[in-house]
Amino acid sequence: MTTPQVSLSRFPVPELKHLPEDLRTRILAVQEKSGFVPNIFLALAHRPDEFRAFFAYHDALMEKEAGLTKAEREMIVVATSGANQCQYCVVAHGAILRIRARNPYVADQVAVNYRKADITPRQKAMLDFAMKVALEAEQVGDADYAILREHGWSEADAWDIGAIAAFFAMSNRLANMASIRPNDEFYLLGRLPKNS
Amino acid sequence: MTTPQVSLSRFPVPELKHLPEDLRTRILAVQEKSGFVPNIFLALAHRPDEFRAFFAYHDALMEKEAGLTKAEREMIVVATSGANQCQYCVVAHGAILRIRARNPYVADQVAVNYRKADITPRQKAMLDFAMKVALEAEQVGDADYAILREHGWSEADAWDIGAIAAFFAMSNRLANMASIRPNDEFYLLGRLPKNS
Amino acid sequence: MTTPQVSLSRFPVPELKHLPEDLRTRILAVQEKSGFVPNIFLALAHRPDEFRAFFAYHDALMEKEAGLTKAEREMIVVATSGANQCQYCVVAHGAILRIRARNPYVADQVAVNYRKADITPRQKAMLDFAMKVALEAEQVGDADYAILREHGWSEADAWDIGAIAAFFAMSNRLANMASIRPNDEFYLLGRLPKNS
Amino acid sequence: MTTPQVSLSRFPVPELKHLPEDLRTRILAVQEKSGFVPNIFLALAHRPDEFRAFFAYHDALMEKEAGLTKAEREMIVVATSGANQCQYCVVAHGAILRIRARNPYVADQVAVNYRKADITPRQKAMLDFAMKVALEAEQVGDADYAILREHGWSEADAWDIGAIAAFFAMSNRLANMASIRPNDEFYLLGRLPKNS
Amino acid sequence: MTTPQVSLSRFPVPELKHLPEDLRTRILAVQEKSGFVPNIFLALAHRPDEFRAFFAYHDALMEKEAGLTKAEREMIVVATSGANQCQYCVVAHGAILRIRARNPYVADQVAVNYRKADITPRQKAMLDFAMKVALEAEQVGDADYAILREHGWSEADAWDIGAIAAFFAMSNRLANMASIRPNDEFYLLGRLPKNS
Amino acid sequence: MTTPQVSLSRFPVPELKHLPEDLRTRILAVQEKSGFVPNIFLALAHRPDEFRAFFAYHDALMEKEAGLTKAEREMIVVATSGANQCQYCVVAHGAILRIRARNPYVADQVAVNYRKADITPRQKAMLDFAMKVALEAEQVGDADYAILREHGWSEADAWDIGAIAAFFAMSNRLANMASIRPNDEFYLLGRLPKNS
Repeated sequence: MTTPQVSLSRFPVPELKHLPEDLRTRILAVQEKSGFVPNIFLALAHRPDEFRAFFAYHDALMEKEAGLTKAEREMIVVATSGANQCQYCVVAHGAILRIRARNPYVADQVAVNYRKADITPRQKAMLDFAMKVALEAEQVGDADYAILREHGWSEADAWDIGAIAAFFAMSNRLANMASIRPNDEFYLLGRLPKNS
Repeated sequence: MTTPQVSLSRFPVPELKHLPEDLRTRILAVQEKSGFVPNIFLALAHRPDEFRAFFAYHDALMEKEAGLTKAEREMIVVATSGANQCQYCVVAHGAILRIRARNPYVADQVAVNYRKADITPRQKAMLDFAMKVALEAEQVGDADYAILREHGWSEADAWDIGAIAAFFAMSNRLANMASIRPNDEFYLLGRLPKNS
Repeated sequence: MTTPQVSLSRFPVPELKHLPEDLRTRILAVQEKSGFVPNIFLALAHRPDEFRAFFAYHDALMEKEAGLTKAEREMIVVATSGANQCQYCVVAHGAILRIRARNPYVADQVAVNYRKADITPRQKAMLDFAMKVALEAEQVGDADYAILREHGWSEADAWDIGAIAAFFAMSNRLANMASIRPNDEFYLLGRLPKNS
Repeated sequence: MTTPQVSLSRFPVPELKHLPEDLRTRILAVQEKSGFVPNIFLALAHRPDEFRAFFAYHDALMEKEAGLTKAEREMIVVATSGANQCQYCVVAHGAILRIRARNPYVADQVAVNYRKADITPRQKAMLDFAMKVALEAEQVGDADYAILREHGWSEADAWDIGAIAAFFAMSNRLANMASIRPNDEFYLLGRLPKNS
Repeated sequence: MTTPQVSLSRFPVPELKHLPEDLRTRILAVQEKSGFVPNIFLALAHRPDEFRAFFAYHDALMEKEAGLTKAEREMIVVATSGANQCQYCVVAHGAILRIRARNPYVADQVAVNYRKADITPRQKAMLDFAMKVALEAEQVGDADYAILREHGWSEADAWDIGAIAAFFAMSNRLANMASIRPNDEFYLLGRLPKNS
Repeated sequence: MTTPQVSLSRFPVPELKHLPEDLRTRILAVQEKSGFVPNIFLALAHRPDEFRAFFAYHDALMEKEAGLTKAEREMIVVATSGANQCQYCVVAHGAILRIRARNPYVADQVAVNYRKADITPRQKAMLDFAMKVALEAEQVGDADYAILREHGWSEADAWDIGAIAAFFAMSNRLANMASIRPNDEFYLLGRLPKNS
């Protein structure tokens, strides 16, 4: 099968040397750590202020361990991005989930149908809440919080679950609107013993 | 009709004196300018990092005049927030839209059914695109961009339209999940000649 | 913002002098009482038999105080018309609701998301039932009536709630199909102390 | 198969002798003409004002031949009632459609999927418009009227098509909410040569 | 009303004499038994391997009496085919249901809205499960099986209910895609005393 | 992350030695060829007649090269199974697609959002048709066939595309209803150079 050439976004992708210093620094740091630059960094770089706010928000929600583990945070991303049909987010965060959960199966399971995934009932309750925020937030109410509490999630955890679902409601829409392409590197990450 | 007492959010609202300096300064500046503090500032204050990123992102998208006018940016907020049934965003940004458009009718029209609003065909094309990003972004494609171009919107405008719809996809979900209440002040703003 | 000229309906609007006597009398009486003629009267006048049946039906459902208050009847109209994206009904009946409830906030709250409105649990149960009739009547069953009873609504009240939702299912479709425009007068009614 | 006993409505059905004179007269006239009393007459009789308005409206829309034939009017009822899953309306108006169209097949075809029915392209355009009014009236616009015109339907016909769909949006919701049962007599009407 | 000439499928219908021996034999046997050849046999005959697998699967699910009666199996077909708007399946299996249930009303009732049909609560639970498999199988879970058990359905029955709904999910799509036309003979079958 | 123990189906899985000879032979042949037994074979084995019909149907549609390549047939399975949230089918047929297309990326792309996948416009037209059969077959009509023809697909190809979508509408529902678990082996198949 021949693959048509595709770009990483339908919007402009500036050259690194033309970027503001702080963006270039961040991008080079990611490349140093990961071995490649995830396309989302390049796709947002044409808008430096939005780039800065996006990643500041992302890090505030995803780079914490309190309450939810980092793997659980990624689970929320993968489940809601699957529901929103966001190719970039499912493929990229699927890789991160496999690595953080040290589990080569869970990302594909959660992306397709989290109800059938090998996760705990407590994690299913977390994803039920996240999916309701992602898909019908106007109906979220006391009963939904009560179920979280029954599974041992605190009010602060509830905020995290919902806020991550809300942030990726935005991110999924940006990636779909701009046709942001997942890097080839993501597909295999965390699938082999050495990665997990 | 008696009105049950309600709080402005189901999550904690810190006292001003306990907030980090930069949040307190921002909130006092808004109060100075508007005469009251919109509840979204208080509802996000319990998470300072998220507060900072949220408003940095908001300002990057909404405080510009290039391409879209500020009134048109608010139109996108009101139309998509109506579709997402977000009471805070429809009431608060409805007020801002009335003021920025100097028009006491357009906000209610756009919130309920923008297809019937007194706006131009070019603005309807803008809202068609915004609504597609808000409600079925997975289906956005070349044909949608072509329609924008036919109405004189540039690629940079298209990004703005979609990015505003995406940002409020997040904001609507946060406000619905946390039951953030619109301030009473918003309801009448921009409805009387002196306000417009 | 310049406003394009728009007509009050895409269908013919007869002159008053060409109307049957009973229609003209009714319209003049409304004008006398309200100070203006709500556009729905003019938009239906080209079909005198339908006009007569429409307002006879409307009055039979809305001009009663037994069981539901008049304000509660208007709440049902505003909530279901919001769900059906009917601009005329939300704006016109929003005004009536503000006046009848002596509350300048409740109409906008109910139009956008009644689950977050400052109304009683009993009124939320009323609107839950009305919305189910409006949006998925085929699924209404014994369990829905049981919830109404738990909140103190009688079987006769249940009929009223459902019949109002059903009548405005018709009215919303007529107004959307004919692009019936709300009068400018409605937008401010009931928002200022003297009106409430 | 044993059939559980069921009533014709979950709401009260008054005895004929307790009804206002005009309702009793109307009901007896129908019985005289049809050989039985369609249950909708009995199910609405507990609310005489609503009964009168309902049938006045019904007759204004359905008892005409101008533009649409009576059979075409019934087609609209059957197609939209099928979409709304209204058992009473599909069964009762299916019978009337078979009789008026002198065709024993068309009612079942239209009730299930009018796109596959043995009707003309002009009738399909009529039903496309009716279904849009029934299911997504908020999106009806100029393009929909243009298609009707291409098929030779006038603006007055467009009103009839939409108004019938709107009236049965109400009727379907009443029948589903009240569980109004179709009379056994309807099922076979118009299916045998002598009936057609 | 004149009926446009229509073919029984938009795909090729081979002549009987050109069919493989086993297909011809099966078709002639059906004709012998029923007095006509249901169009589904002719519409699938251009693909002999698919024809064989289709009817083998059909018979494995439908020609049993254990657990579910044959009439109950047909109820599942009619209810789910109504939801899928499949004209062929509703009309053809509606006839079979009338005959097997010896009831001239139940098929039309179940096709339009099984919740209002004259069937037992146990049969409604069966159809609730079947409809969930037909329309949102991704959400089927333990709670659904528990309800079946409460109504006395075994695990083997649950498989039958779901497998019939799944098989007709396929069949409905084939018939709609190919515009397979129901034979005229089906419409009256089982409606008259001699048939029931 | 600890993984809860899960079975391969919620329905009985017979031991190989208790199976009819032809089922056992088929299963052993698959094991010989693939190195493991895909769980679908074990999950259907408790119903030998359904097992035989299922795989006969499957092979009639999937084991051909005429018109559609085998990789294209698998693309249809993966795209529609993603839309139906069927974990077994996405994971198992994703592996087969990677192998048949000799492409480690295409399966994940097509499963999440085929509109953004690296496939040809002709293949996108194929998937547009397949998705319409999978999700709204009642609306398939002449215009859909015309688009296929414009992309060089014959009527026989159209049947294959639709029939594969229809068959997996069944298969997805069976797998979701029975919670059939994908084998661990599938996740990595076709992702490494040696497999492709």
